[in-house]
Amino acid sequence: MRVALLAGGLGGSRLARALTETIGPRDVTVVGNVGDDLEVAGLHVSPDLDTILYTLAGVLDEQRGWGRADETWNARDAAAEAGAETWFQLGDRDLGLHLARTEALRGGEPLSAVTTRLARAFGVEATLLPATDDRLRTWVSTPAGELSFQEWFVRRGHEDEVDAVRFEGAGEARPAPGVLDALGTVDLIAIAPSNPFVSIGPILAVAEIRRALEQRRAPAVAVSPLIGGRSVRGPADRMLARLKGGTAPAQVTDCYKGLIDALVVDEADADEDAGVRTIVTRTLMSDANARRRLAEAVLGVPV
Amino acid sequence: MRVALLAGGLGGSRLARALTETIGPRDVTVVGNVGDDLEVAGLHVSPDLDTILYTLAGVLDEQRGWGRADETWNARDAAAEAGAETWFQLGDRDLGLHLARTEALRGGEPLSAVTTRLARAFGVEATLLPATDDRLRTWVSTPAGELSFQEWFVRRGHEDEVDAVRFEGAGEARPAPGVLDALGTVDLIAIAPSNPFVSIGPILAVAEIRRALEQRRAPAVAVSPLIGGRSVRGPADRMLARLKGGTAPAQVTDCYKGLIDALVVDEADADEDAGVRTIVTRTLMSDANARRRLAEAVLGVPV
Repeated sequence: MRVALLAGGLGGSRLARALTETIGPRDVTVVGNVGDDLEVAGLHVSPDLDTILYTLAGVLDEQRGWGRADETWNARDAAAEAGAETWFQLGDRDLGLHLARTEALRGGEPLSAVTTRLARAFGVEATLLPATDDRLRTWVSTPAGELSFQEWFVRRGHEDEVDAVRFEGAGEARPAPGVLDALGTVDLIAIAPSNPFVSIGPILAVAEIRRALEQRRAPAVAVSPLIGGRSVRGPADRMLARLKGGTAPAQVTDCYKGLIDALVVDEADADEDAGVRTIVTRTLMSDANARRRLAEAVLGVPV
Repeated sequence: MRVALLAGGLGGSRLARALTETIGPRDVTVVGNVGDDLEVAGLHVSPDLDTILYTLAGVLDEQRGWGRADETWNARDAAAEAGAETWFQLGDRDLGLHLARTEALRGGEPLSAVTTRLARAFGVEATLLPATDDRLRTWVSTPAGELSFQEWFVRRGHEDEVDAVRFEGAGEARPAPGVLDALGTVDLIAIAPSNPFVSIGPILAVAEIRRALEQRRAPAVAVSPLIGGRSVRGPADRMLARLKGGTAPAQVTDCYKGLIDALVVDEADADEDAGVRTIVTRTLMSDANARRRLAEAVLGVPV
């Protein structure tokens, strides 16, 4: 059984890991969000792709939920001493990855090719693809004005309410090589329990990817990022409440209208009508068993 | 007594330190070479300015002669694992400086302003200026073709013979703010025992700086980088032999024709005719006493 997974950062990376652990890495293609990519002093940082890469390589800092384990922070500290802004924190080992990626991008290599090379260098056997090689950036409209994704999310701690989301460059963005092929040939399309607006939204903002989901041959299933109407991490619940009018499964389904055949929800949300076929399980991926249970629920959808 | 010093990397930084230790930092203006600046994955690295900065701040790795003491190399190692070229080695703390500088340059701050801020952040009281805020890059013609300075110097270990030196951008480069003022008002202009071709040459390639030296009000003195016809470090002796026909004081003077009033040479070269007023001392700056002795020889020139 082959699976394509649309994924944001942490939730996406955990389900990616769960799937690779359950069906083996070679049958998993992860399509990662690049809407929160940013440049730090010109270095190209792809936070979601990196979280997935580090997770699948087993080097993610699980405590922090981002960056590498056994990290050092000497560059950040020196930059701060030298007067630089360091609200977007880059560890030393993490910086090495950004140096390698940026050098390759500046040499003309597309992001997807760099990502494939990096995954190989890290011993990752699953296929990891950016949604697009083109520049696509997420902006959020807030009462404080429009903010770039990372300005809002990291610098201001996603405290500003979001009234709208805009994907700069999405109109011209083409799917990265391999994405449409994966979506068209797998046995199951899965959408990770990532933020529907700012993690999955940028992927679906690429018109050909959205169309591939609309015209899917294989069934598609999303995993709700909510447990008991609350997001496990991050502002998905607040965004659903403000932008969709509620934090029940139905509002998650509404984010994926016409794109999914089933929604996996947590036991805490079992009583709600999701407006689509619902699979109930425990969705918190707290350990290997919990990951496998969720993966099996997802993988059971085509049956 | 106020001194302006034209300086390359290590030799320049050591004489800069010697002068600040002898007359106090506030009366020393160092005009640093930027011809060996480079971009690493888009990060702007200024090796000579950094060597001077780190030296004056007391954080240079004295053993290595470049970069910071107590350095870690996690970014470099991670970049190498990720498949990047790492022949130009950047330590983690050093990277922090490059991040801060690059961020400021990308924000539109001129290199001279960034350098002033960085010097202040490091507690350096001497004035440190790049020769120019404009892009100026050193290229060397070798039997293997024309090479960028760092490609030749670091990557290929300056093993290729040099037939000519070219300073890309020099035609349009203006002196950085403060440079002409310093050269026009100090009591002494000094040229450090740096490589005349590739360390001092790029500074003198800025036409207004060369003119300021030609029309100097204050006396100018160079310190020969040779001891007994050999360079203390680097390829200055081989370049003098190939490009000037010898490695005696006269060939050093010839590099600064019309620009200096005196040459400080080592005791080992005392018997040679330098073609200009000669001050003989021990020029190797091996410790604080040796630095002071050389500084005093230099500072004695106006007398």
